[in-house]
Amino acid sequence: MLNFIEDGGVVSPKGFKAVGIKAGLKRSRSHDMMLLVSDVPAQFAAAFTPNKFAAPPVLYCQELATSADTVRAIIVNSGNANACTGRRGMTDARRMAEQTAESLQHATSENVEANEVFVSSTGRIGVPLPMEKVLNGIQVAACELSSDMKMNEGAARAIMTTDTVPKFCAASIDIGGVTVTIGGMTKGAGMIAPQLKPAGLHATMLAYMTTDAVIEKDVLRACLADSLDASFNRINIDGDMSTNDTFIVLANGQAGNASIRANTFEAELFQKAFNRVAGELARKMVMDGEGVTRFVTLNVTGAKDKAEARTCADWIARSLLCKTAWFGADPNWGRILAAVGYAGVEVNTDRTMMDYDGTPVVRNGMDAGTPEEDLAKIIDQREFRIDLDLGVADGEYTMWTNDLTYEYVKINADYHT
Amino acid sequence: MLNFIEDGGVVSPKGFKAVGIKAGLKRSRSHDMMLLVSDVPAQFAAAFTPNKFAAPPVLYCQELATSADTVRAIIVNSGNANACTGRRGMTDARRMAEQTAESLQHATSENVEANEVFVSSTGRIGVPLPMEKVLNGIQVAACELSSDMKMNEGAARAIMTTDTVPKFCAASIDIGGVTVTIGGMTKGAGMIAPQLKPAGLHATMLAYMTTDAVIEKDVLRACLADSLDASFNRINIDGDMSTNDTFIVLANGQAGNASIRANTFEAELFQKAFNRVAGELARKMVMDGEGVTRFVTLNVTGAKDKAEARTCADWIARSLLCKTAWFGADPNWGRILAAVGYAGVEVNTDRTMMDYDGTPVVRNGMDAGTPEEDLAKIIDQREFRIDLDLGVADGEYTMWTNDLTYEYVKINADYHT
Repeated sequence: MLNFIEDGGVVSPKGFKAVGIKAGLKRSRSHDMMLLVSDVPAQFAAAFTPNKFAAPPVLYCQELATSADTVRAIIVNSGNANACTGRRGMTDARRMAEQTAESLQHATSENVEANEVFVSSTGRIGVPLPMEKVLNGIQVAACELSSDMKMNEGAARAIMTTDTVPKFCAASIDIGGVTVTIGGMTKGAGMIAPQLKPAGLHATMLAYMTTDAVIEKDVLRACLADSLDASFNRINIDGDMSTNDTFIVLANGQAGNASIRANTFEAELFQKAFNRVAGELARKMVMDGEGVTRFVTLNVTGAKDKAEARTCADWIARSLLCKTAWFGADPNWGRILAAVGYAGVEVNTDRTMMDYDGTPVVRNGMDAGTPEEDLAKIIDQREFRIDLDLGVADGEYTMWTNDLTYEYVKINADYHT
Repeated sequence: MLNFIEDGGVVSPKGFKAVGIKAGLKRSRSHDMMLLVSDVPAQFAAAFTPNKFAAPPVLYCQELATSADTVRAIIVNSGNANACTGRRGMTDARRMAEQTAESLQHATSENVEANEVFVSSTGRIGVPLPMEKVLNGIQVAACELSSDMKMNEGAARAIMTTDTVPKFCAASIDIGGVTVTIGGMTKGAGMIAPQLKPAGLHATMLAYMTTDAVIEKDVLRACLADSLDASFNRINIDGDMSTNDTFIVLANGQAGNASIRANTFEAELFQKAFNRVAGELARKMVMDGEGVTRFVTLNVTGAKDKAEARTCADWIARSLLCKTAWFGADPNWGRILAAVGYAGVEVNTDRTMMDYDGTPVVRNGMDAGTPEEDLAKIIDQREFRIDLDLGVADGEYTMWTNDLTYEYVKINADYHT
């Protein structure tokens, strides 16, 4: 039994505090720094962008993820990506972790080390961080940390860039009579084209999840890896992959349940709940994609294998012609087949089938004969589903994507943080 | 010495006639059928889309290209792609060739066979051709054929879809004291992302070239293959590949030069001229890309090899974030490096260099320090050049691409032929 918690987020699980503050990094003067802290050392799992221009904070975190046993905090700034900033960028990322540890010690009298702090940055590439503002911001954030439920929204707001709404949620489950809670937040909006592998995360996204579960480290790591296909792995908003993508989950064990072990009923239960929360965050990300007016569930079946189903879905989701047709409520299925035809996957063109929300569109590679105005009504909805069968074998993949609008062009032609 | 011919096109070489007429296939009621005829049987070379949903006219032409020795004519309709139309589409394509042969015989009293006629269609996918209009159109076209120079423009106009201007050109060279002329026309605008190989042509484009040169068949075929890298191979407008791409060249030998043989000075001379004309057509296609306001020459050097240089250029040209930044005159080079980082090519991030029109932008993977307003002035031009060095080896590739604008979204959200 999974219960979604109203206005739930990263501080819904026991023993987490967070805050979002204004450090003056954005021209818009909105919230731009987020601090998330566990009351006690927490297990963690993490995935990062495989972009070759991975930003210094990502490199810093990758190092930390392999060396640290447990962590305490995550510090994030928006408005500046600290990417393509060379050695200075690396020094600045480390300095952010050090300042966070120092400020937390000062504010809480607890012993926190720099190597217990993850660091993320998002925003403009190629500009060094204004470190004075950043370090001041960290000090302010450490003093204002709170476990108040309004911090779920406050924290999620501070990591936004072109996002229009803060994205967060939480749910709880019962594990052996003990309530275990999972919360999370994410930012997305642009540069979103994940091709997630457990080894790395491709996307323009930051996602942070928390849980108070007692869980074995390996189970938590497998859990994050498994969740990708049901969440961030499914989405392709604009086909661009960022230099700063980061997905981290912290588990602090404050729920007091019997430790969740591999291959148990409890592990399965936890995994399901984790996937639901991660999936909900991913869904919110697509819905809040830059300029998005349509949410499209793209279900490819009948492919040679799962990888080809994914590749096929990916090329459709990348196609400017498909995306603009959706925006225009144009049922133009020919553009979808054209994309399938150049996706480099096996397809039986005489057996290809397509439905929009269960209504026949293509039968055996040709027009199914449904009147165009009926199809247009489906595409004119805020949300619809496309089922595409390639007629080859049993491979399938579900992707979440969206339309391409004037607003997307406007946002990205005008965007200077 | 290459001389471009003012208002030159497909009927500039000797012994070619053409015409563009209105058959009533487009809602806009503009010109929608083109007929190009050689006075005598002509050598040919051709390349077609490798899209798995290749349209019936493409399949028809591919068959013809392998079986025919010489051809006489090319018949083209715009407004309907005759794609995803199954067996009926194949019958319709063949019927177009038959009608063309019959009408030409009727109009010129010459013996023309159906298997001497290439057929192309472009426009909306998935709707059967309105054959009565098409067949009537062919009869009209056969009667109105002319070698008048104004047919260069008239023919080029009739193959347009969302193109805003007809695109055609011609040039002549001296081969052994004889003037040889090369002409051509093309349509493009949308679904333009060629990844041309001599074996096949990826793009939403139709391109037809004519020459009156006497040239050996193998030399002509090698010539077309070689030209791709200097022309249609170089362009990526919107990343979508069509079901109908076709590039055909006809050589009718009416110039009376000594036959051009392989590995001769004359073959080299002809190749150069051919590449220039094909390149000019490709360039016009980018300039007239849907909603395009910027023409970007993207020169990638220092890659592992030519293939990786091309892949890298291709991902930059596909990046919505790069394309919208260009539209907004935003020198945001971070988006370019982000695209390089996910292109899957080798890059030395500490040695990466970038220039805009020769002005330093990135040095050793970081900001070169040129004031942003200076860079913005360059990006605000109608045409500019980006030089990007990956710092790995000697692979290089030049691509022509463009920005992504409101107008592109508008055209493609509203497009119903």
